[in-house]
Amino acid sequence: MSTTRTDISTLGEFGLIDHIHQGVTLRNATSLKGIGDDAAVIDAGEEVILLSTDMLVEGIHFDLAYTPLQHLGYKSVAVNVSDIAAMNGKPEQVVVSIALSNRFSVEAVDALYDGIKAACESYGVDLVGGDTAASPSGLIISISILGRTKKGNEVYRSGARENDVICVTGDLGAAYIGLQILEREKEVFLADPNMQPDLEKHEYAVGRQLKPKARMDIIHELADLGIKPTAMIDVSDGLASDLLHISKNSNVGVRIFEDKIPIDEDAFNTAVEFKLDPFTCALNGGEDYELLFTIRQQDVEKLKKHYDIQMIGYIHSDPKQNVLITKNENVVPLRAQGWVHF
Amino acid sequence: MSTTRTDISTLGEFGLIDHIHQGVTLRNATSLKGIGDDAAVIDAGEEVILLSTDMLVEGIHFDLAYTPLQHLGYKSVAVNVSDIAAMNGKPEQVVVSIALSNRFSVEAVDALYDGIKAACESYGVDLVGGDTAASPSGLIISISILGRTKKGNEVYRSGARENDVICVTGDLGAAYIGLQILEREKEVFLADPNMQPDLEKHEYAVGRQLKPKARMDIIHELADLGIKPTAMIDVSDGLASDLLHISKNSNVGVRIFEDKIPIDEDAFNTAVEFKLDPFTCALNGGEDYELLFTIRQQDVEKLKKHYDIQMIGYIHSDPKQNVLITKNENVVPLRAQGWVHF
Repeated sequence: MSTTRTDISTLGEFGLIDHIHQGVTLRNATSLKGIGDDAAVIDAGEEVILLSTDMLVEGIHFDLAYTPLQHLGYKSVAVNVSDIAAMNGKPEQVVVSIALSNRFSVEAVDALYDGIKAACESYGVDLVGGDTAASPSGLIISISILGRTKKGNEVYRSGARENDVICVTGDLGAAYIGLQILEREKEVFLADPNMQPDLEKHEYAVGRQLKPKARMDIIHELADLGIKPTAMIDVSDGLASDLLHISKNSNVGVRIFEDKIPIDEDAFNTAVEFKLDPFTCALNGGEDYELLFTIRQQDVEKLKKHYDIQMIGYIHSDPKQNVLITKNENVVPLRAQGWVHF
Repeated sequence: MSTTRTDISTLGEFGLIDHIHQGVTLRNATSLKGIGDDAAVIDAGEEVILLSTDMLVEGIHFDLAYTPLQHLGYKSVAVNVSDIAAMNGKPEQVVVSIALSNRFSVEAVDALYDGIKAACESYGVDLVGGDTAASPSGLIISISILGRTKKGNEVYRSGARENDVICVTGDLGAAYIGLQILEREKEVFLADPNMQPDLEKHEYAVGRQLKPKARMDIIHELADLGIKPTAMIDVSDGLASDLLHISKNSNVGVRIFEDKIPIDEDAFNTAVEFKLDPFTCALNGGEDYELLFTIRQQDVEKLKKHYDIQMIGYIHSDPKQNVLITKNENVVPLRAQGWVHF
């Protein structure tokens, strides 16, 4: 019997995931793609079924001191829908499991499910099952989602090729900035419960943290324009980290330009007020749930004037050269920070 | 804003599930069956995909004082496979999410996944994804599973008809009896840590609790015999509760005979030793993960001599008359006890 004890913190979250998945092989012909993308891909005749799952844990992923349960429910579905979007699929079914302690009332559960059901309606998803369990403490939400697309229409992290152009939707960093605001207001409130939270002037960033949207609109628009991205991922860990996933899986290098990174103006100003570098927030903040994708040169013209898609760089051949070109033309290596929970 | 606070305990687990699922409707044509069976049923051309999910919470569903992590991993997959078996399907893919606190080491995670991977191998299932999260305390395992069968071959809880014969596989009650033994040994150990647990003479019941098997063997045998059950469910909540699910969903009544209920001899003796009624354990214990199904009269002959399938009663037309006939020919109404966690 082994007497070694290795702390999980020595691996980190990505390291732990890699460690767990070592030696996992696929046995069934219907398993077209297993671990390693935004969703697994399952054969369904002329179509493929996409399967993804996410778990949200109280005290780790959310703080009920400032997270309305309705928003939490909505977000927990939206982040799963975002994984299906990132595979170029249409979300169709979710199963929702919750574990909760007896400090939650039926009314609290209703608020949570109001949000879940609202998100299901927004994204045209059916709630088809789930599990309900007691928990010794805290709330845990685990959602699995099925999506679908025509076989061959699914987009992997691995398809980026030299000279492809890197695109990102919406703006980045605001969700992280929103989180900083909420954490500050919580501290203020704990220090003096008579203080009312001052969230209105930071509405955009706070909303991005509490009520993220999955970019299904972009998936539909790309289809309408006849564009199939060569690679895609949703920005959940942060732009840098998610670009590195594309680099690793596609075996190519990425080169992006700081001055092209889209940041909301209000969020920018708020970041500065909080003594945070807005570009660092955009690169490493995460939870923006925007789509990050690559397109072929021939599709550039079609997206050049899109109001909500920004071209931020391009793909080159060397997978070891993943860099950011700063405004001062310094070349800085991209590093994955992601989240450190352990 | 409502100021009412209703305790979840006023609803119970089944009540809470019913409450949550009120007003849920299906939007997508691909959602053939949503909430209310062992798995959701999703259209996949000539086949259907079956989707089920289960969450196991430390301190509620398992106690690590006496549950080896490897067995826990195996069980967490097996109980999901059992849901696919109960739909008459073949399991194919799982996604596994875990949340765990830093008291768990990498070696502990490895032990858990050794069990998960062993179960995947036993049942021919592919591990195709998952999520890993930190937890403020305790271990939570959430698994979703995909299964598959030809369209029309899936079996629902709702198909039982008058005069169908009720069958159950294996034996019942031992998993609950095993749990009582484990709980007793834990008390003994806590009172005097020098006491060594005395589990060997109760090996069968303890094994049924810690290492349940999903009855995929029966699914294959029924297919070989050309038998499609008219209704099916796996015995997770207890025979009585699961029979009532068939009654409610099929809108029929069930009539079973106490002396036909299969109970393992060793488990029977252990129950008596523990001053438990073995039949109550079989009726209400749950976690046996045997298959409970109904067959047409014309299929009775084919299963009459099956070594591991017992016919325990029959279906009649009145959904309000769900009864057990005792050995003394008393007629006792069946009641769902299930589990009370809240």
